[in-house]
Amino acid sequence: MGQDAGDVARRLLTGEIAAGARAIRWLDDRDPRGPALLAAVYPHTGRAQIVGITGPPGAGKSTLTDMLVAEWRSRGMRVAVLAVDPSSPFTGGAILGDRVRMARHALDPGVFIRSLGTRGQAGGLSRSTHDAALVFDAMGYDIVVVETVGVGQDEIDVVNLAHTTIIVAVPGLGDEIQAVKAGIMEAGDIFVVNKADRDGYDATRRQMEMMLHLRAQSRPAQPETPVLRSVAARGEGGAEIVEAIAAHRTRLEGAGDFARRNGLRARAQVINLVKDALTARALELGGDAIFDAVDARRIDPHGAAEHLLRQLDERIIAA
Amino acid sequence: MGQDAGDVARRLLTGEIAAGARAIRWLDDRDPRGPALLAAVYPHTGRAQIVGITGPPGAGKSTLTDMLVAEWRSRGMRVAVLAVDPSSPFTGGAILGDRVRMARHALDPGVFIRSLGTRGQAGGLSRSTHDAALVFDAMGYDIVVVETVGVGQDEIDVVNLAHTTIIVAVPGLGDEIQAVKAGIMEAGDIFVVNKADRDGYDATRRQMEMMLHLRAQSRPAQPETPVLRSVAARGEGGAEIVEAIAAHRTRLEGAGDFARRNGLRARAQVINLVKDALTARALELGGDAIFDAVDARRIDPHGAAEHLLRQLDERIIAA
Repeated sequence: MGQDAGDVARRLLTGEIAAGARAIRWLDDRDPRGPALLAAVYPHTGRAQIVGITGPPGAGKSTLTDMLVAEWRSRGMRVAVLAVDPSSPFTGGAILGDRVRMARHALDPGVFIRSLGTRGQAGGLSRSTHDAALVFDAMGYDIVVVETVGVGQDEIDVVNLAHTTIIVAVPGLGDEIQAVKAGIMEAGDIFVVNKADRDGYDATRRQMEMMLHLRAQSRPAQPETPVLRSVAARGEGGAEIVEAIAAHRTRLEGAGDFARRNGLRARAQVINLVKDALTARALELGGDAIFDAVDARRIDPHGAAEHLLRQLDERIIAA
Repeated sequence: MGQDAGDVARRLLTGEIAAGARAIRWLDDRDPRGPALLAAVYPHTGRAQIVGITGPPGAGKSTLTDMLVAEWRSRGMRVAVLAVDPSSPFTGGAILGDRVRMARHALDPGVFIRSLGTRGQAGGLSRSTHDAALVFDAMGYDIVVVETVGVGQDEIDVVNLAHTTIIVAVPGLGDEIQAVKAGIMEAGDIFVVNKADRDGYDATRRQMEMMLHLRAQSRPAQPETPVLRSVAARGEGGAEIVEAIAAHRTRLEGAGDFARRNGLRARAQVINLVKDALTARALELGGDAIFDAVDARRIDPHGAAEHLLRQLDERIIAA
């Protein structure tokens, strides 16, 4: 089996799962064949709809995703799922439950499931997610689901760059959780109250509608945002959500926003890559002397940063 | 009232609240007087104990913080609190409830409370937090509490750099939340089960102790990590937690680790500042042309990032 970037790229474009898995591994491992492969397949991207699914822990996002995957498959669409979990030193990154729940799709070649940990690297989450989404897009998946807990800034960045963002709520969680969730309310295109057979459904739905009403006042030109109900564990509500997602794509395309969001995502990706590379350089530069000076409080952190930037300029000029 | 950095620095060192508030505003707004002021006060930092308090939404972190503040005040210690909230477009960044709960300390000059939103900037959270912690330190606060939801990478970075990290859990939250929390288990110096009067307390405590047992196996030289109980809403358990925090400081100082953690925090701050400055330069250089090429799929994001980095080098050499 070819290990060469061009060969893997060719096989990947035919949708071969093993080639896709290898590509993502190269990108995660920072293997130089990863970027070479992305360069080869990038012209073939831009077709997949990126769907962010987010909400508080316990909202049943994985079960909901599982139900939506089944619904898309019944319509003949191919789906990739990126489950983004905060890395755990005990589990090695992925929450076992996700994998177990998704097991029924494991043998379906029309479904590609991948768990991403953040591996403790700043910016690692968005870098891996964006790279993997491009690979799935090039492989011809119609839908790429990115499922996150949606609380951290990294995750908010990822979700904000999806074409379609689904916010999942659940009856009976406290106010504090609702407030945390408010941080990503702005990005929500479709709202779902899952576990809708539970006590408190009406209150949660009303709360959501009230927040959307407030939001609509600050941007009145927007079309109405759907609030849907589901009981994912019993397979209820999937068709309506999948249809709302398709309707959202149609609306984005009509307004030219589908391609525009791809552009914003690529832009964020470029900026993150530049930032990562420059951090490595900055670290190389300083040596220990400047940090010793900071430790001794002879210079403060902002002063030290300026010093390093001047050094960088001088060293490059001398080279 | 003086607007000059030196004047504000002098007043800040006497503990004047208005001067501290102005300094933090300058730093947040990227006003050039902010770094000038930090340079002036930096030699007077290094005394405050930075205490990170983190845990899932709903664990009662704010109520716990409120209780600890009261306990520290009763011992004559001065306390600053940085509440780090995911930014919300509806509240302007801070969760109203935090402010309401902390209102009883609002008129106490020995307590300084400040909510930080992340303002949607990547890296903005850690920059603002570190800068504010230095200001509080220079003002002579004995304790600087940094309270976060503790799920995002930015937040984990902040908490990892505290002197003392407290992980708050709560009975009755599902497995998924425990898994999320595991990402920062590694950093925990003190564990607290809050709302300990609730059903499920024993199970949560056992779960915590089991995780700590696993952790201890991978680093056997560490002293035992306390697991404490509290019912913060009724003021129960504050004294024990405050004493454990003081004991942790004593242990850090004995091992030389108190100053070492200050050094690590300053180092992270320098690196972030350098990275942000270089990224801004690279983007300025690139202009829109490179992003237009990405949109047209003539170049992929990794290729565009490389191009910008080369341009950065060349312009500096030509200068």
